[in-house]
Amino acid sequence: MSNTHPQGEFELIRDYFQRQSLQRADVHMGIGDDGAVVSVPVDKQLVLVMDTMVAGIHFPLQTSAYDLGWKSLAVNLSDLAAMGAEPAWLTLALTLPHSDAEWVKTFSLGLFALASAYNIQLIGGDTTRGPLSITVQAHGLVEKGGALLRSGAEVGDLIYVSGFPGEAALGLILLQSNLQHHPSYEHLLARLNRPEPRLGLGRSLHDIASACIDISDGLLADLQHILDASGVGAEVLIDGLPLSEDYRAAVDDKQLYRAALSGGDDYELLFTVPKTKQAEIDKIAEDSKCLLTCIGEITEGNTIRCLDAQGNEYTPEHLGFEHFAE
Amino acid sequence: MSNTHPQGEFELIRDYFQRQSLQRADVHMGIGDDGAVVSVPVDKQLVLVMDTMVAGIHFPLQTSAYDLGWKSLAVNLSDLAAMGAEPAWLTLALTLPHSDAEWVKTFSLGLFALASAYNIQLIGGDTTRGPLSITVQAHGLVEKGGALLRSGAEVGDLIYVSGFPGEAALGLILLQSNLQHHPSYEHLLARLNRPEPRLGLGRSLHDIASACIDISDGLLADLQHILDASGVGAEVLIDGLPLSEDYRAAVDDKQLYRAALSGGDDYELLFTVPKTKQAEIDKIAEDSKCLLTCIGEITEGNTIRCLDAQGNEYTPEHLGFEHFAE
Repeated sequence: MSNTHPQGEFELIRDYFQRQSLQRADVHMGIGDDGAVVSVPVDKQLVLVMDTMVAGIHFPLQTSAYDLGWKSLAVNLSDLAAMGAEPAWLTLALTLPHSDAEWVKTFSLGLFALASAYNIQLIGGDTTRGPLSITVQAHGLVEKGGALLRSGAEVGDLIYVSGFPGEAALGLILLQSNLQHHPSYEHLLARLNRPEPRLGLGRSLHDIASACIDISDGLLADLQHILDASGVGAEVLIDGLPLSEDYRAAVDDKQLYRAALSGGDDYELLFTVPKTKQAEIDKIAEDSKCLLTCIGEITEGNTIRCLDAQGNEYTPEHLGFEHFAE
Repeated sequence: MSNTHPQGEFELIRDYFQRQSLQRADVHMGIGDDGAVVSVPVDKQLVLVMDTMVAGIHFPLQTSAYDLGWKSLAVNLSDLAAMGAEPAWLTLALTLPHSDAEWVKTFSLGLFALASAYNIQLIGGDTTRGPLSITVQAHGLVEKGGALLRSGAEVGDLIYVSGFPGEAALGLILLQSNLQHHPSYEHLLARLNRPEPRLGLGRSLHDIASACIDISDGLLADLQHILDASGVGAEVLIDGLPLSEDYRAAVDDKQLYRAALSGGDDYELLFTVPKTKQAEIDKIAEDSKCLLTCIGEITEGNTIRCLDAQGNEYTPEHLGFEHFAE
């Protein structure tokens, strides 16, 4: 046998994932063995989330490698935010049609930009050949018994949403309609490709909110998940929905609420709060400079009623985005 | 809005993954929220492994759903075995071209058969549409500082392998050559499709072996990973390789050693042991009814020399299986 063993392109592109400068003290073995070894603090529980993004299904084929690196982690951190957890580590399963060193390098830069900003270390994963697909598992820590669940909403609780839901869906529409010249294009596309997970907000809410979810399928679809888990219904006041100027500039009046109610990919937090804690929510909004808007109230029943300012029922066209529902 | 919200096929097939009867006491939230919540014992560290299997790359397209469910977990448990860890939980990212309830049901039965046998609970994941691909992350527990790594091999240590390496590769060859009538077909194909992770052996070795890896790429390729991590070389005595009767029945003399040295997908353990611990290895082999064969010795240098019984150097054709190395 020769003195050097063959090193495939496969191993070469893996090297990019070993270049994160961040090294957490609780990581005893990261990339480079059969598995990673980490320590969980004795007063914490471990929270695990996992999301897959497939080319052409979850993102347009022209999405940049940097944005994919960022977003594949961001959607997972958003789940950790919705659980009230503090992120710690991530693993990555990346499947690529062919070994493209430049692509992988750029992807890793997008991933690491977000990971290192939140003190999260990439500790392992798998890189394989096949149709482009990205699965990230993120691991977070939460106080024992302190995870925010979907199941705690009670009749009378107020329903809040962070930020401006619907902007990401409008970004996708502008992109697919080739409306790059639209004055709101840059902002709305950034909302699609570089979502900012609401980690600080999630941590602030973990002992205040009664239920929480992040908006990935659409506001109404995800609200329904809270209702199903909690055994309650909801009234949503559509005139109270927070619609940004960029949002209003990109929609016509006839479809004013559609993206905000049914657009996916926002990664804002949707949560319920007992009325007695309204002042605490106001303070969190002020401290975190994060817009928090009350959009309705939890009711009896198991469905959502959308009402306009006159109290008339409003029927949205569809609840949200569903894979397989062709 | 109607009284019932639409439930896609997507959600329907997800239901199959909620049917595992096993419920571990350390799982506080499993499938059904934004993330799973689990507890790690204070005296343990967490071990994380992740493997992706892509249709047509990692398994032939005709592989049954049951076998894929079994194998996608088995290859991860094999990594946990190689770390000396005891498995606890798994998450699954399943990407399917279309929602096929029967396929998913059968897949879940294969997955749960293996999971429940080792007291492992499926606690989350993601089911998406796209080209068939399966990513499993498995989580195990190990004593603090007790994980078996690749990096501890020292000059003079003995090299052992469990079971009969090469059988899985021969199973694949028989399958691809349409040799279903071959007397060893059933056995060798089972070795390919239903690998038994060496979890008990890994636990027994965790304070005895100096280094350990599981054979996924091929014996020599994986031995090289130990050598790279430990900064040592190795001599392998090819006449000492354990070759089963089924193995011998499926190869010609000219290629006698090829599958054993370079065939992937065996998921046997390859490990090194100080010579002073040889008696302990003999006892483990006896207690566990697992064949453990000494196949060589760690040397100085950084490469592998294969020697026959006469001391002549033997040059294998290739080290192992590499993705992207087309």
